[in-house]
Amino acid sequence: MLKHITSPQNPTVKRLLQLQEKSRSRKKEGGFIIEGLREISLAISGDYTITELYIKESYLEDVSIVTLIDSLKNVSVISLSDEVYSKIAYRDGTESVIAFAKAKNTSLQELQLPENPLLLIAEAPEKPGNIGALLRTADAAAVDAVIIANPKTDIYNPNIIRSSVGCVFTNQVVLASTDEVISFLQAHDIQIFSAILQEAQPYHLQDYTKASALVVGTEATGLTEAWRQASTQNIKIPMSGAIDSMNVSVAAGILTFEAKRQRDFK
Amino acid sequence: MLKHITSPQNPTVKRLLQLQEKSRSRKKEGGFIIEGLREISLAISGDYTITELYIKESYLEDVSIVTLIDSLKNVSVISLSDEVYSKIAYRDGTESVIAFAKAKNTSLQELQLPENPLLLIAEAPEKPGNIGALLRTADAAAVDAVIIANPKTDIYNPNIIRSSVGCVFTNQVVLASTDEVISFLQAHDIQIFSAILQEAQPYHLQDYTKASALVVGTEATGLTEAWRQASTQNIKIPMSGAIDSMNVSVAAGILTFEAKRQRDFK
Repeated sequence: MLKHITSPQNPTVKRLLQLQEKSRSRKKEGGFIIEGLREISLAISGDYTITELYIKESYLEDVSIVTLIDSLKNVSVISLSDEVYSKIAYRDGTESVIAFAKAKNTSLQELQLPENPLLLIAEAPEKPGNIGALLRTADAAAVDAVIIANPKTDIYNPNIIRSSVGCVFTNQVVLASTDEVISFLQAHDIQIFSAILQEAQPYHLQDYTKASALVVGTEATGLTEAWRQASTQNIKIPMSGAIDSMNVSVAAGILTFEAKRQRDFK
Repeated sequence: MLKHITSPQNPTVKRLLQLQEKSRSRKKEGGFIIEGLREISLAISGDYTITELYIKESYLEDVSIVTLIDSLKNVSVISLSDEVYSKIAYRDGTESVIAFAKAKNTSLQELQLPENPLLLIAEAPEKPGNIGALLRTADAAAVDAVIIANPKTDIYNPNIIRSSVGCVFTNQVVLASTDEVISFLQAHDIQIFSAILQEAQPYHLQDYTKASALVVGTEATGLTEAWRQASTQNIKIPMSGAIDSMNVSVAAGILTFEAKRQRDFK
């Protein structure tokens, strides 16, 4: 039996908006909102569990929407009037579907790593656009995991999902404190290459073919002292311009693809 | 004699706002607005001519502001009431100064290039944030020039200046049509490496130590046909994720720093 919501005052509308806006709501429910067919498909491929689908009324018969519904088990399908849909959605168009998915909250202990893994670690990144670009880079490079140390936000912020174009679902992503991450790396004999200017070697003269973690901090404050202490080797990107600064997601891309180059993109 | 503006209705306020908002106003006046001491200093180092300084009244005595005024010749200094300043400024704080600077409009013919130059070329980039990140990368890599082919906007958009953290002033930047750019590169025997997937070789197997131009398109539509025709070699970044897509400024960073690596960062 299809549920249909036509009133913007319906409590479900408020709930969905809060799930988008508030990290606290996502935490409380243990889930989050995904907008867009492409992003939802990537989440399904990434083994996320979708429990609710909200579909704009006028797209209920759309073939890709019907296929999506058929592919899911134990999912509640709710149709929304166009007015209600517009109130919740960021975009509007042919992919007019919103899903509620369960959060994964992968822990360090649950990480599945191959031999000689390559990890990308960002400490306390703040801007959703930067985190999104970082996750896209991680996907393109197929790094073995992304770790956010000392997170400032959960990764299911709609701006992160959007700017990652769904790549937040295609990688193992772990959130943990810097101390926990460092202990984990040391316990697994993973080399730590921290992007820290002090006592740094040029990044392109290091060997990343062994188990390696590339660690970047924020543009404003860099990495915390703990990383300097734990670093196998500090690395820097040689800069020769008027300003010694680079967008953090660009820097992460340069480091990650140098590691991939050394590994023959395998 | 210091001019002082206290009324938000003053025509100068309207003029400054239009210079920020409208490319047409910038073109008509042959100049643009720079906000912030750091950005203005970079423009001065980059040989931009500053003709007007607008200073928040309460910062007139600030030592860095006084030093700035003393360093400039033939500049009109206008003080703004705090209310008026807030109306014009994007940020507010200790660097409360706004400048009017003359546009450079460097042409291809005016470009000063060394032997074996390295050029970064972007066709029709749209997002100011991406253009800013690209200019930061160009600064960090000290490429010999940045060329925007088929520009969608002028480069003195305040969002570009801001997101480039002033790096728009530290490089030679040229705007020209794709046809003009290709003719220029061919006339100067500069190799064209176009980021185009078709018939592409992996980027890291090419030799960028000779005169080289790295050319990137938009994420949505890539490069136009003209680049494919003119390409010395199409290049691609090997991707192994779920999505074959990467932020354009990250991709440009990876290509540029591979070229720099091959050139021993000289």
